Amino acid sequence: MNGRTLHQLLARLFPLARSITGPGVRETLRQLQAIAPLEIKAVPSGAQVLDWEVPEEWHFRNAWIADNTGKRIIDAANTNLHVVNFSTAVDKHLSLQELKPHLHSLPDRPEAIPYRTSYYERQWAFCLAHQTVLALENGDFGNGPFHVHIDTEHLRGELNWGELVIPGKSSDEILVSTHVCHPSLANDNLSGLVLAAALAAERLQQKNPHTWRFLFVPGTIGAISWLAANQATMPNIVGGLVLTGLGDDSPFTWKDTRQGDAWIDRIVMQVLREQQPGQHSRLPFGPYGYDERQYASPGFKLPVGRLTRAVHGTFPEYHTSDDNLDFVTPECLEESLNLLKSIATLIDTDGFYQNLAPYGEPQLGQRGLYGKIGAQRDPGQMQMAMLWMLNQSDGFNSLLDIAEKSAVNSETLHHAACMLEQHKLLKRT
Amino acid sequence: MNGRTLHQLLARLFPLARSITGPGVRETLRQLQAIAPLEIKAVPSGAQVLDWEVPEEWHFRNAWIADNTGKRIIDAANTNLHVVNFSTAVDKHLSLQELKPHLHSLPDRPEAIPYRTSYYERQWAFCLAHQTVLALENGDFGNGPFHVHIDTEHLRGELNWGELVIPGKSSDEILVSTHVCHPSLANDNLSGLVLAAALAAERLQQKNPHTWRFLFVPGTIGAISWLAANQATMPNIVGGLVLTGLGDDSPFTWKDTRQGDAWIDRIVMQVLREQQPGQHSRLPFGPYGYDERQYASPGFKLPVGRLTRAVHGTFPEYHTSDDNLDFVTPECLEESLNLLKSIATLIDTDGFYQNLAPYGEPQLGQRGLYGKIGAQRDPGQMQMAMLWMLNQSDGFNSLLDIAEKSAVNSETLHHAACMLEQHKLLKRT
Amino acid sequence: MNGRTLHQLLARLFPLARSITGPGVRETLRQLQAIAPLEIKAVPSGAQVLDWEVPEEWHFRNAWIADNTGKRIIDAANTNLHVVNFSTAVDKHLSLQELKPHLHSLPDRPEAIPYRTSYYERQWAFCLAHQTVLALENGDFGNGPFHVHIDTEHLRGELNWGELVIPGKSSDEILVSTHVCHPSLANDNLSGLVLAAALAAERLQQKNPHTWRFLFVPGTIGAISWLAANQATMPNIVGGLVLTGLGDDSPFTWKDTRQGDAWIDRIVMQVLREQQPGQHSRLPFGPYGYDERQYASPGFKLPVGRLTRAVHGTFPEYHTSDDNLDFVTPECLEESLNLLKSIATLIDTDGFYQNLAPYGEPQLGQRGLYGKIGAQRDPGQMQMAMLWMLNQSDGFNSLLDIAEKSAVNSETLHHAACMLEQHKLLKRT
Repeated sequence: MNGRTLHQLLARLFPLARSITGPGVRETLRQLQAIAPLEIKAVPSGAQVLDWEVPEEWHFRNAWIADNTGKRIIDAANTNLHVVNFSTAVDKHLSLQELKPHLHSLPDRPEAIPYRTSYYERQWAFCLAHQTVLALENGDFGNGPFHVHIDTEHLRGELNWGELVIPGKSSDEILVSTHVCHPSLANDNLSGLVLAAALAAERLQQKNPHTWRFLFVPGTIGAISWLAANQATMPNIVGGLVLTGLGDDSPFTWKDTRQGDAWIDRIVMQVLREQQPGQHSRLPFGPYGYDERQYASPGFKLPVGRLTRAVHGTFPEYHTSDDNLDFVTPECLEESLNLLKSIATLIDTDGFYQNLAPYGEPQLGQRGLYGKIGAQRDPGQMQMAMLWMLNQSDGFNSLLDIAEKSAVNSETLHHAACMLEQHKLLKRT
Repeated sequence: MNGRTLHQLLARLFPLARSITGPGVRETLRQLQAIAPLEIKAVPSGAQVLDWEVPEEWHFRNAWIADNTGKRIIDAANTNLHVVNFSTAVDKHLSLQELKPHLHSLPDRPEAIPYRTSYYERQWAFCLAHQTVLALENGDFGNGPFHVHIDTEHLRGELNWGELVIPGKSSDEILVSTHVCHPSLANDNLSGLVLAAALAAERLQQKNPHTWRFLFVPGTIGAISWLAANQATMPNIVGGLVLTGLGDDSPFTWKDTRQGDAWIDRIVMQVLREQQPGQHSRLPFGPYGYDERQYASPGFKLPVGRLTRAVHGTFPEYHTSDDNLDFVTPECLEESLNLLKSIATLIDTDGFYQNLAPYGEPQLGQRGLYGKIGAQRDPGQMQMAMLWMLNQSDGFNSLLDIAEKSAVNSETLHHAACMLEQHKLLKRT
Repeated sequence: MNGRTLHQLLARLFPLARSITGPGVRETLRQLQAIAPLEIKAVPSGAQVLDWEVPEEWHFRNAWIADNTGKRIIDAANTNLHVVNFSTAVDKHLSLQELKPHLHSLPDRPEAIPYRTSYYERQWAFCLAHQTVLALENGDFGNGPFHVHIDTEHLRGELNWGELVIPGKSSDEILVSTHVCHPSLANDNLSGLVLAAALAAERLQQKNPHTWRFLFVPGTIGAISWLAANQATMPNIVGGLVLTGLGDDSPFTWKDTRQGDAWIDRIVMQVLREQQPGQHSRLPFGPYGYDERQYASPGFKLPVGRLTRAVHGTFPEYHTSDDNLDFVTPECLEESLNLLKSIATLIDTDGFYQNLAPYGEPQLGQRGLYGKIGAQRDPGQMQMAMLWMLNQSDGFNSLLDIAEKSAVNSETLHHAACMLEQHKLLKRT
């Protein structure tokens, strides 16, 4: 999939009123099935999952505030961010003073509408631009009373997530997890959603050494629900990535797994060094963030890190209406997908080799693997790659180890390994 | 005790003519008993202690040099630094040439009187300002002969030190050691003396998880004597601090234990990072310095580091008459005491916790431990502290480990741990 | 040997037409026997050595290109670099177009003649200054045909290397290896040759704690041949140095062993820090370079690093006629020899000591080992050295360990250790 296709898919999903439960999530998952054949899983409202209870479904229809002439001041038909996610229903006429405790806005970013949630405390509230709040206070919309209307319902039903397992040669699993609960926010996290689906589609087209598991889960409660239902799967998971915020033009950032030096940390950092030299950053593990915090809880300790571009809480558009379809670009989505593919490639190709002629260097020249004229200044990348593979393939160094030690690209090392295998100088173990 | 009280106590102790043995040390220890009920211990002159022999007591009465009219050129009544510490007695009339080998001065600091000792070679000598030496050479005090008079006595008696053990819940001991042998020098080491006494007084007022042992010892021979007498205590000592030079306004410096990464090293560095961010330094271990070198000898290897402000040998006032009552200030003494109290608090609170709901995050919101409105930019320090404690309390990470990994203050972590304990989510192990 | 003698020897060896086999190498080894009694070893042409076959001997007599009047345009009588090393014979009259594929030159360094080899592909070719190529193209030497003449012969014979073993108190061996195959190139590698011989001469004059083995081998095939014949020796080799490029005025560079933190790495780096502070560099291990790559192959894994000044491939004179007798100087050769001697000294003196008075510090003053007047600013290097040796000699720290931890020079530490041994305070274990 190219960047344009990714962006078009993202744009189609944008208006859906997602939450942690309800029709918004289900419809999002259904549309993703066009890209990758994910299964929609469910756990009933009220079920106990680990320390949590699955909430009811949230059905959102509409929400607005009107002035005393009936003219709508804000209307969630324009953006579903206007209603606090999971808000209860209300229909009242209130003075400005009565209304104000139910309004969320950002004084330091007056044109943006914030994204707010209230999942576990039942209340009703609106989000709006701070300039609208000021206009209300200034009497620009009259003196009230203001008609507030939120048409939502909380119903017993189910919590849903999407799941796709692509069996590989080994039962060792790579977990790719992305959260599906955010409403009309493009980077956080429709970018993660479409990229996970696109990577899954790409993986389906080839033979995979590892099993890949893609999870499209509502944040926190979705990951908790999946963890509760899949404890037997845990020992298979050898590494994982949480994907989010991958459509903007910030440099890539890898947040370490709890382990900090797990195989997946090293895989991703190697690919970033190779493909984004000097243009990426690394965050230490911490227990705050996205669902990596659930996977990394002390009962599970899964080696799952997080790949992002802009980092949550640190960019001005974060959790506001400015995280929109302009904030993510086809080019950046495509670059992110390419990076994910390269990560997957190194996951596929990493492994241990054994030098079959380990005493001294084998005579590469006789096999046509070495330049004919000696004593030149530079041996070239492919010859360096062969020398590194031969020298280090003693059973203790994987291809990734060798890539980390040498300045040679991991794909070149893999290519060299294949050539040496053809000449019976190396054997994959 | 506040800074003013500390400085007043220091000023009272200043004129006493301390040495490694004799009445000066005994009187100093006696006056400290008003602050903390330390016991005065003794070992007789001539006793063999490890590789050393306990020297005789040094009784100092007076010392001066007079010109040929009897007028005193220098007089130890003004400062006991004028006599080389442990000097033998003398009463002679000498030419300047005969006198000069017995004079110590500092050409590069001509107004200061140096502090010099001669414990293990019996000789007599004076210390004086270099400008006075120049004046002598210039004939300003006449042509001599000069009357030199030192009234001291070396007597068989005893070597003394002060010791206070405050039993705690555990027999694991924290050792606090400070040297009491320096005469009229304020920072080195009356500052250490009064702060150790003040910390002892503070520890006496509370229940202590650990046992605390405070030592007020003559440098080298006092520490050697204590070590010789207390070999059975060694296995209990889990960490220690040598205190010296803590009254001036230099930034704090921690000198590592022999181990370099011992628990006490980590405790002190954590508190320095929290309370003096960017304003402290760290020295590697070395076998020179104060009594940490005895505690760290290869037969004992006690994990004892050293806390100072100005570092011996590196500040111009070091071991001169400029290390006086102006060089140390009430403010700096109080700041040092507060730092010591914080170190003691982290020693008290560090420990291991167990997460009682380790699978995923427990639902903090339902317990009133988490903000009600979600999706905000910043979770706040207390919520971060709770998440860190929960995530890392797997039996392998202590509170100190967690403080080192997170950017959260150790006191906030301890507060969070207490709250989580109340909600049965965490248990101290 | 001083720098002047080293340079004179180097100059005598310079014109010999060395290659990997043949009379040039034999004559070079024979001349080195005047300095150190190395044995000339042989393996017959056609022998199988590890993965390689020993090539025939290369006998070179002369080589030139003449214009159509018989005037010589280039002549290997001036420098043997003009003929590609191991070239086959030829005697033909060729047009410029026919000739050009057989010419090697350096467009970016038009006055220099490159050094090229073709050991394992039989072909004939010349090396010449690029300005000569341009002159040929410009018709300065007429329009041809050009008479090309190379008088060489490939004969069954033997491959030779020089070897000198100096038995020491221990059978643990230090390997010093240097390549002898380069023709008229001064720094690479006559400098390595004469320095290895000079170090061997120096080692012969003293009792050596370790056994020293000096190898003068043709590059690659010589090292391979030696390895094939000496597998029983491998377990004795505790460290080694490949010597090359040690006559120019670049700062010293140590290339790490495969292990990276082997004893020999630490020995050499300690001496470089002491003697060339801030004026040396360190390269990580890599499988390209000189014969260290053979010693470090995964079947052997010998801890052999490489000491150079200018690093192969990184200086403009590398493998050209500019690596001549002016490029290496007596001063730099002598400085390199002195560094090698210091490395050998630390190899000799490193070891473990045991403190015989480990409880507290022993009373050095009573033994005349400590200054008589106390409380001075600086204890002096020798006292610091004694304190470090006493404090760290617990059976776990060698002299090298102590040199690395302290800022004290390893020779001063060794001197201190000897003094402490005389006073029965320390014992070498």
